[in-house]
Amino acid sequence: MPIPTLTSQARPSTFQVEALNERGETVPTAIAGEHALTLYLDKRELVTLMTLGAAPEHLALGYLRNQRLVADIGELAAVQVDWDTGSVAVTSRSLAERGVTIWDDAERAGALAGRLGRRTVTTGCGQGTVFGDLMEEIDRIELPAGARLSEEVLYTVMDRVRRHESIYKVAGAVHGCALCSNVGDTRGEILRFVEDVGRHNAVDAIAGWMWLESIDGADKIFYTTGRLTSEMVIKCAQMGIPFLLSRSGLTQMGYEIARRVGITMVGRCQGRHYLLFTGGQRFVRQPVTALA
Amino acid sequence: MPIPTLTSQARPSTFQVEALNERGETVPTAIAGEHALTLYLDKRELVTLMTLGAAPEHLALGYLRNQRLVADIGELAAVQVDWDTGSVAVTSRSLAERGVTIWDDAERAGALAGRLGRRTVTTGCGQGTVFGDLMEEIDRIELPAGARLSEEVLYTVMDRVRRHESIYKVAGAVHGCALCSNVGDTRGEILRFVEDVGRHNAVDAIAGWMWLESIDGADKIFYTTGRLTSEMVIKCAQMGIPFLLSRSGLTQMGYEIARRVGITMVGRCQGRHYLLFTGGQRFVRQPVTALA
Repeated sequence: MPIPTLTSQARPSTFQVEALNERGETVPTAIAGEHALTLYLDKRELVTLMTLGAAPEHLALGYLRNQRLVADIGELAAVQVDWDTGSVAVTSRSLAERGVTIWDDAERAGALAGRLGRRTVTTGCGQGTVFGDLMEEIDRIELPAGARLSEEVLYTVMDRVRRHESIYKVAGAVHGCALCSNVGDTRGEILRFVEDVGRHNAVDAIAGWMWLESIDGADKIFYTTGRLTSEMVIKCAQMGIPFLLSRSGLTQMGYEIARRVGITMVGRCQGRHYLLFTGGQRFVRQPVTALA
Repeated sequence: MPIPTLTSQARPSTFQVEALNERGETVPTAIAGEHALTLYLDKRELVTLMTLGAAPEHLALGYLRNQRLVADIGELAAVQVDWDTGSVAVTSRSLAERGVTIWDDAERAGALAGRLGRRTVTTGCGQGTVFGDLMEEIDRIELPAGARLSEEVLYTVMDRVRRHESIYKVAGAVHGCALCSNVGDTRGEILRFVEDVGRHNAVDAIAGWMWLESIDGADKIFYTTGRLTSEMVIKCAQMGIPFLLSRSGLTQMGYEIARRVGITMVGRCQGRHYLLFTGGQRFVRQPVTALA
């Protein structure tokens, strides 16, 4: 399947400013970059995302995917980021090859407008608008019942994340997400690590990468530094990943949706400590050495 | 000036679930409530906010204010929350008294539609959509040049916040905001403290309360547990408050907007430590005992 062509326009991640501390000293301080990126789909403006700018093309793709605005990556011809205008233009094959925009298809445009029309502002660092009614969709999601996460692998994930170089360590003020392996010798190893000023943008950038590379979520683990709220759980489930870990806490809605969609969710992961909230049937406190 | 009548529909703030910890023990764990609240203005649906539900009426008011959808609180007759339908209905005096909705005024409806049409998804826990172009507005904001914040008062704020009873201490996963006095004997004392699953909702609930009670921001200090991003800085400036403190870090956009709007912003406030980033001309490292 053909995939869209992408620009590769990462921005510098940190920005240096001077601050005055409690000792009266002026100290050079690194802060996280944050830029406005306006997303256009076949020339129509959809939304402006505030982002660190580390993976803007993947962010645009993941946003379209997670908001259910485009179902098939084969529909897209190009993703072009231009920081001079603070924009990312996503062009469909239909437009690129036949001069017909996604919006020209009346039925499609209607469905998209319906999704764009419903605005749900969730608790979301990096994202607050969930187009359409994602809640309807989560009941159609089936996460693999036979997947298993061992405590040993959970600890491996926490260790790898802790040791990973990050903007957070330098400048704070960002959230990080990691997609990890849950098979074979690489169990617990980080496959992809993305930071953004908002945790939902970090998730979307990983989702966009997975979509582009046709990477399946069923044999993966997802880790986020952000809180486990409704939107985080929904996105993880949409990515088909049965295991969601966070060092943070969770909200009631995140908990209820996790139960509803049948995901295995572990919060407050810190050192050896964790709290397993849902999906305990997939969790194994002994190492999974007997499995392939 | 008449103010709208309000319901008083706070939801329970925490919710008890069972979790399995690393010792294999099942532990009762408090998690933060999170509920969907759909906001209607004269019967038209605007947005759905995900909220802890501690101050839903103030949240609705503050949201309308901070998004610049309603300028004058005298225009509103009622704010009615109904958790059975997960909705808050805001009714204008025009509708309540004359049967004419805000939307019936064509010019007004046009301006509102314009604001509603532009979607900027910011890094926002609790909020991601900033209707209209708030950036245009910040250049019109003038914060009081003569206001002063002493280091002593900053430490008082940090102390009062640290000692304040909070859902965060019980259940984590929420952000808190405090509006503090900066005059007389009450300098540094908390006037209003609100928590929400999203930091922007907490800010909006405080803004809504200030609007309702005609409380001026010029002689106040604002503290947030959340990060100092563009939206946080804009809201604080819109509330007319010259001092913005956070225990967290900041982003480049937050920094640039803070400089542009001339706010005094201090981040990484922890114990005796802080970093003053902007507006240092208002900051005094000696106690302000000589002032009234």
